[in-house]
Amino acid sequence: MDSLTKFREITKKMKAYIYAMTLVGWDSSTEAPRGCFTRRAEMMGILDSELFKLQTGEETVKAIYDLYAKKEELDDLTKREIEKAKKEIDRIIKIPENDYVEYGKLLALSQTVWEDAKEKNDYPSFKGNLKKIIDFNRKFIEYYDLKEEPYNVLLDLYEEGFTMKEYDHFFDVLKADLVPFVKQVLAVSKPENDAFMTAFFDKTRQQEFSDYLLDVVAFDRSHGLMKKSVHPFTWNTSPEDVRITTRYLENYMFSSIFATIHELGHATYEQQISILYDDTLLNSGTSMGIHESQSRFFENIIGRSHAFWEVHYPKLKSIFIEELKDVSLEDFYRAANKVEASLIRVEADELTYPMHIMLRYDIEKKLFANEVDVDELPALWNKLMFDYLGITPKNDSEGVLQDVHWSSGMFGYFPTYALGSAYAAQFYYTMIKELNIDDLVRNNDIASINKWLKEKIHQFGSSKKPKELLLEVTHEEFNPKYYVKYLKEKYSKLFLE
Amino acid sequence: MDSLTKFREITKKMKAYIYAMTLVGWDSSTEAPRGCFTRRAEMMGILDSELFKLQTGEETVKAIYDLYAKKEELDDLTKREIEKAKKEIDRIIKIPENDYVEYGKLLALSQTVWEDAKEKNDYPSFKGNLKKIIDFNRKFIEYYDLKEEPYNVLLDLYEEGFTMKEYDHFFDVLKADLVPFVKQVLAVSKPENDAFMTAFFDKTRQQEFSDYLLDVVAFDRSHGLMKKSVHPFTWNTSPEDVRITTRYLENYMFSSIFATIHELGHATYEQQISILYDDTLLNSGTSMGIHESQSRFFENIIGRSHAFWEVHYPKLKSIFIEELKDVSLEDFYRAANKVEASLIRVEADELTYPMHIMLRYDIEKKLFANEVDVDELPALWNKLMFDYLGITPKNDSEGVLQDVHWSSGMFGYFPTYALGSAYAAQFYYTMIKELNIDDLVRNNDIASINKWLKEKIHQFGSSKKPKELLLEVTHEEFNPKYYVKYLKEKYSKLFLE
Repeated sequence: MDSLTKFREITKKMKAYIYAMTLVGWDSSTEAPRGCFTRRAEMMGILDSELFKLQTGEETVKAIYDLYAKKEELDDLTKREIEKAKKEIDRIIKIPENDYVEYGKLLALSQTVWEDAKEKNDYPSFKGNLKKIIDFNRKFIEYYDLKEEPYNVLLDLYEEGFTMKEYDHFFDVLKADLVPFVKQVLAVSKPENDAFMTAFFDKTRQQEFSDYLLDVVAFDRSHGLMKKSVHPFTWNTSPEDVRITTRYLENYMFSSIFATIHELGHATYEQQISILYDDTLLNSGTSMGIHESQSRFFENIIGRSHAFWEVHYPKLKSIFIEELKDVSLEDFYRAANKVEASLIRVEADELTYPMHIMLRYDIEKKLFANEVDVDELPALWNKLMFDYLGITPKNDSEGVLQDVHWSSGMFGYFPTYALGSAYAAQFYYTMIKELNIDDLVRNNDIASINKWLKEKIHQFGSSKKPKELLLEVTHEEFNPKYYVKYLKEKYSKLFLE
Repeated sequence: MDSLTKFREITKKMKAYIYAMTLVGWDSSTEAPRGCFTRRAEMMGILDSELFKLQTGEETVKAIYDLYAKKEELDDLTKREIEKAKKEIDRIIKIPENDYVEYGKLLALSQTVWEDAKEKNDYPSFKGNLKKIIDFNRKFIEYYDLKEEPYNVLLDLYEEGFTMKEYDHFFDVLKADLVPFVKQVLAVSKPENDAFMTAFFDKTRQQEFSDYLLDVVAFDRSHGLMKKSVHPFTWNTSPEDVRITTRYLENYMFSSIFATIHELGHATYEQQISILYDDTLLNSGTSMGIHESQSRFFENIIGRSHAFWEVHYPKLKSIFIEELKDVSLEDFYRAANKVEASLIRVEADELTYPMHIMLRYDIEKKLFANEVDVDELPALWNKLMFDYLGITPKNDSEGVLQDVHWSSGMFGYFPTYALGSAYAAQFYYTMIKELNIDDLVRNNDIASINKWLKEKIHQFGSSKKPKELLLEVTHEEFNPKYYVKYLKEKYSKLFLE
């Protein structure tokens, strides 16, 4: 059997394991009874180890290296796939098994340590684990690539081709252009008939509206479904089965609405990938940043637009007749775009959100450049929070301890969130040259927007790298000015005019 | 590694595959979007073939045969397990792979052929497939065991140790004692204020009552859950995760109530098996018949008892105030136990149900004794239906074509349904020597009944064979008189006094 046939066979088998384990994960996050998890972990451990053997087996590694050696003879798609596989396998096999196991244990333990520390507002109890996680990451980077700056190796993990060079430029633009604008808006924006935001809204009726949103966004129900979970997420095995979850908070109805639209952005991306990639490594979204660009495009650019609520606010009012009887369309629209300096990233509004990311980027960069120590993180966090948003956390639980990422070893991930919003804006300014977005939204024809996205972005899965995709779609390299422009246009109109 | 260690290792690995695939099955039956099934079949095919390799691999077969050869040296539980494994592996490896594959294809095709035939009332279009399925079964029996009567080999598949000897005796008792009684009841039972049975009952409120029933039956929600599906079923991977489904028919409210209680009987059995068997082949119910005895015990003996509705009818009335305002407890109780000669097995009442099974048993027995040909089945079916219930199907869709079993190759399965009811009655007369069932039900203390069932039956999983279990619990071999006695007592009181 030649290497390519072998590679295809192994890939397909791996996909079958991943398929089943992914579905078990879906069950765990949505409905599994709490008493099943010990047994489940044991069972999944066995399959996981079978998968690992398959992924790192001699035959697999040989097939990938063989193909990599003659990659210039391969067609473009296969070449891209083999490069991806080679990168992945290098990362795994260069790490000694013992380190791999130790790191896994450390992460498992650190999860609980972090949860407790956050609960008890006790950063010192967590910082030892944090230091160990960082040290392991440094060590892994050394095994893998000695030539590259450590933080760049991590950044590339989550957004292929993006290093500190790109991100520094991105955040420098935001610091220069956006920070002053945000402060200007914060100084004038004030609550206006927005008490309904935290009023009681029945969960069952919120669910009715979320279900309505599925059709608004033209979600393909024959290849997906929506359920609820504690933390909203999008789940997929292939374009044939893409699911989202949302959550219903009785005293914050916006949570379900915007979580649903956000996840529908991710889901639409996955549903529209060509099924031609099903048996390849290219059958899902190409990067964290591009994925986030789709969710943020739906959530913020479409879902928080005036046009959107012109069409759909009547439906919401018809579901919540009493609750919304004194809330006008304008009240609702302004509330959905309320700007506030706040401490918690996941609750931040569209405009202040990137400030939270800049802060984390600054810290991670310093950490991996050895310019800051874990002892100094809380103070650095609080200083940056004040610099960017003019506020200071009361304690570390609402400061340095708030996110799950670091306790899970995810360094280099945060910047993709802001990058996603910036990509979305850059795509948006390309799109409006061809489509009248507001009119389409007003005509309840998001299907036409989906069609554009499918043709330009979605169908390709990860066959194109993020930089490639951006250049092909927008005829320009990544340019953060669009993001600043979009935010300034929208929020000036809302609060400064 | 010795054979026992090897056997344990392989068993555990097989369990991990089965765990994941079973969960995928749960998803398929309850919520998976319809567009995912082609891809899903392909992915599951890969895992299935991995499992098959594991199950029939040289190492596996060697370990089982080694252990079987020295089974007298093993402890009782391991001996039982190895006997089970040996029986299973013999059945598989004696069938040539080609036959196995051909039969699989035939069954897959026959499913659609049967569905179409039933839909179009066209038995001739199905009988060719039916004949082929029967012939394959004969052939498989010959590979497996030439000494035993063919039908006995099939019967033993579904109820270990039960052959035509036991079933003939069982059905002879029913024919002699029950058939005349059923005709007597049918002659006098008539509708009394039972129009509500087919009136409109809102599905969401039916669901509320089904959810209430979970607590009534003391279902352990930390190790299970309830959902809806087209056909109600119980699902389990181990006692840590046992799920049921029910269905809500807007114009037949009894469907959800009694399906829920029925499945809760199966589920309670599975939840109460000792977790000590988790890593063995003995960690689920011991046979179809014993399983059905638990579901029928809950559904009929408890769930259709007067005591049960004395306590729970007020709750049902409080959910359906308008719908049930003119329905008294007595009306409701009589309706829940309404007796009617009907053509469809799955809709039959408790009293006429065994007549449907006798009919199928008679036919299967003749089929495998070569005393009847597939051409003659419709006429034979109709004749027996008239003999036992005094009615005749208008067409084959409501006659010989009604059940899925034969198109799925399941011959020998039907008798376990009636056997289950008979076991339940035999357990019942033992139980009432120690417990006052009616009082416990009246005190809403089904937990105490569960405790008895756990101690005597459930905890053992399949470590005891059905005959063994029956003898140990009731101090008597299987005795169908209890079943007749139970039915006569109950239905005499209801309709003949």
